[in-house]
Amino acid sequence: MPADELTSLSATELAARIRRKSVSAREVLEAHLARIERVNPTVNAIVTLVPEQARAWAKAADERQARGEPLGPLHGLPVAHKDLVDTAGIRTTKGSLLYKDNVPTTDALIVQRIRSAGAITLGKTNTPEFGAGSNTFNAVFGATKNGFNLQKTVGGSSGGAACALNCNLLPIADGSDTGGSLRNPGAWNNIVGFRPSPGRVPDDDGSWSPLSTSGPMARSVEDVALFLSAIAGVHAPDPSSLSDDPAGFRRPLAANMKGKRIAWFTNMGGLPFEPEITRVLNANRQAFIDMGCIVEDAEPDFSGVDEAFPALRHLTYHTGYAKLSRDNPSLFKDTVKWEIAEAERQGAVDVARANARQAQMYRHVSQFFAKYDAYVCPVTQVEPFDITTEYPTTVAGVTMPTYIDWMRSAWYVTFMQCPAISVPAGFSANGLPVGAQIVGKPRGDWALLQLAHAFEQATGHGKQRPVF
Amino acid sequence: MPADELTSLSATELAARIRRKSVSAREVLEAHLARIERVNPTVNAIVTLVPEQARAWAKAADERQARGEPLGPLHGLPVAHKDLVDTAGIRTTKGSLLYKDNVPTTDALIVQRIRSAGAITLGKTNTPEFGAGSNTFNAVFGATKNGFNLQKTVGGSSGGAACALNCNLLPIADGSDTGGSLRNPGAWNNIVGFRPSPGRVPDDDGSWSPLSTSGPMARSVEDVALFLSAIAGVHAPDPSSLSDDPAGFRRPLAANMKGKRIAWFTNMGGLPFEPEITRVLNANRQAFIDMGCIVEDAEPDFSGVDEAFPALRHLTYHTGYAKLSRDNPSLFKDTVKWEIAEAERQGAVDVARANARQAQMYRHVSQFFAKYDAYVCPVTQVEPFDITTEYPTTVAGVTMPTYIDWMRSAWYVTFMQCPAISVPAGFSANGLPVGAQIVGKPRGDWALLQLAHAFEQATGHGKQRPVF
Repeated sequence: MPADELTSLSATELAARIRRKSVSAREVLEAHLARIERVNPTVNAIVTLVPEQARAWAKAADERQARGEPLGPLHGLPVAHKDLVDTAGIRTTKGSLLYKDNVPTTDALIVQRIRSAGAITLGKTNTPEFGAGSNTFNAVFGATKNGFNLQKTVGGSSGGAACALNCNLLPIADGSDTGGSLRNPGAWNNIVGFRPSPGRVPDDDGSWSPLSTSGPMARSVEDVALFLSAIAGVHAPDPSSLSDDPAGFRRPLAANMKGKRIAWFTNMGGLPFEPEITRVLNANRQAFIDMGCIVEDAEPDFSGVDEAFPALRHLTYHTGYAKLSRDNPSLFKDTVKWEIAEAERQGAVDVARANARQAQMYRHVSQFFAKYDAYVCPVTQVEPFDITTEYPTTVAGVTMPTYIDWMRSAWYVTFMQCPAISVPAGFSANGLPVGAQIVGKPRGDWALLQLAHAFEQATGHGKQRPVF
Repeated sequence: MPADELTSLSATELAARIRRKSVSAREVLEAHLARIERVNPTVNAIVTLVPEQARAWAKAADERQARGEPLGPLHGLPVAHKDLVDTAGIRTTKGSLLYKDNVPTTDALIVQRIRSAGAITLGKTNTPEFGAGSNTFNAVFGATKNGFNLQKTVGGSSGGAACALNCNLLPIADGSDTGGSLRNPGAWNNIVGFRPSPGRVPDDDGSWSPLSTSGPMARSVEDVALFLSAIAGVHAPDPSSLSDDPAGFRRPLAANMKGKRIAWFTNMGGLPFEPEITRVLNANRQAFIDMGCIVEDAEPDFSGVDEAFPALRHLTYHTGYAKLSRDNPSLFKDTVKWEIAEAERQGAVDVARANARQAQMYRHVSQFFAKYDAYVCPVTQVEPFDITTEYPTTVAGVTMPTYIDWMRSAWYVTFMQCPAISVPAGFSANGLPVGAQIVGKPRGDWALLQLAHAFEQATGHGKQRPVF
């Protein structure tokens, strides 16, 4: 089988073929390495590559299988990790010159879980400096380019991961999301990015905050669910980690959507959207109706989120980087310094108010989703913009005050504290992909994946890939 | 059977007798109402009584049983609710003149669950104004007095509940705890107060904060576990609520404690303790050894909690009462106004630092409890003080800067974000009760209850009650 055919297979299909020995982990790895060698210089998605280490792991995987040992759900699948997460022995730059030679000694929890499930790490994927902003460029590696149009951004911050999936450089890749970083690059690379419920994919930081989470990215909902089954599951040092058995995410996804109640967005409380975004997304409404869903215009109450989400977001940057940026001001981009300065400008009362708004939102969505099974809205307010633009300063003619305001459609949903998935929804007149954002009930990850899978199967939007 | 014999039975025994129809819910209620009539005027534990409403509920309970309907685990047990929680149709003052005529129209979640489990609400228990401080007095009802010595405080804020249990006015009573409010009155009334893991007993406020929780109080660990089985369990609008089946808390508690590893306190990072507290608690060390436990001197790292816990606590008062206190300054006690003023004085960065310390503590306890099964320390640093003292300004000769500093042994443990139980540990030379605080692993409520039960059975400290 030609290498480029192997790399175009789904993760689920690849894993099945390896398991039944119709292809080896080594062959799958070599096919991906060959494609990376050919295509990656054009898009710059994978910024650190460890082919020899990967070959050793793939060989060990094949040997485990030959000995008849039990195999994990990701056995033999090549993977690369977002360059924000620590990888033992593999350079981890966080997109910052301060970390350009940083080689951690331990793997982050998500890396441990991915590796334990049998996947083969081949490198790291590009990310903006410290994950800030939704355009993947940094002073260490430069920008990642969109496979559909090399002049356009891939979004971010899990931009290298999304691009690598879109270009068939990898079958699965992990990402993380505070303000949209799994979903926005999912949308702009015509792949699937899943922001799980808080605590579904645990971490090691000990925090109760529901705003940041890791999550799976892949080319289909089925692959995302398979990947999720390996990275979900309780972890004692994560206070919010959920205890459901993650193997449940490997059940068949197909389900009847008849009678499911869908709340359809209007403008998310008055946000501006580029007309092509609205047009492309709304063209999918009929697909839900054809699936038997009951679709109504309805939106959650997003009032006050404009103040509350940034108030809490600033604190995470302050906690992570205030000292480092004070000591190395010239090595921090302005947007990160702005986050830290805003944290220092705020009073504790601003935080109390934001916490109270967050609590109110949780109560509100519990009621909202008693009436609806899902909420559908655009992932982004704009199409992929020129790669030389750091961030859009206007959206559909409306000025955006700060660098994150153009992606409120994503972080309004973050603030809902619910699982949310970005699924391909079609292409704009400019030939650029648009994503549907489907939001599920609190902790309702499985039901959301079933709905997203049905929508994906019904529309087939996710099949289009760039040609290299 | 004489009324005072019925009221001295455990909740478990009372529930069993009602279930096998050896006594009716009405008879049990009347026995408690008679004792309340006789004893409550002396101690002032129950501040609102609804005897006719309670009689109607008890009659309905007996009729349900007569019809052979399924009975809840608390079927027929009289209960009163802390006056901070809303009770539909029953005055709820929060210990404030501002709410002295407040009659809610809905029950708080914990009240709903207690009632659904078959218990009979007979009134409300006293609490300090807005639950602030650990001495139960307020301008609406005055002070609750300690049954062992009427000149002494019952502690707080669940002081009315603990006193009512100690005086056999009730077999079970709910409480709540931020800085020690289930544990301190538990200790000072020689009963059991259980602060469960965050999310074990859910609430309706939508917040992720692990600092405040409701919990069960009773005269024995077995009764606390029975009560817990009715109020624990997942609740969708509580983002941190735990999904384990609460019926598990009704399993037999007896278990072999051989080999359990106990970390024994020294001074909790340098806190002052009254000598009698340390002496009485340390006299129990041998009981754990006799149970087969391995007891070592070891303490969690409490550094920085002095700053972090108050920083977060101030915010909860600000969110709850800032506006009300601005509009009615003369109707708020100074300590509540101080909490609000401190919230306004702080920067957001203070909160970020406190959040980071809280996250670090969770990681730390996860490691600590990999080595130990439980941590044992005193509930309080002092014996019950004179009822006319608002709060101690010194502990063992050391000056306390603020009104909550004398109870750091309790809120240091709150900050551990682990389940913690106050179990009777014996009496001081002054004839006043001392509590052992046993802290379990994160989410390890069941194992902690088993250990506390074994300790209680081995020592029998919890049997002593005041004579009225």
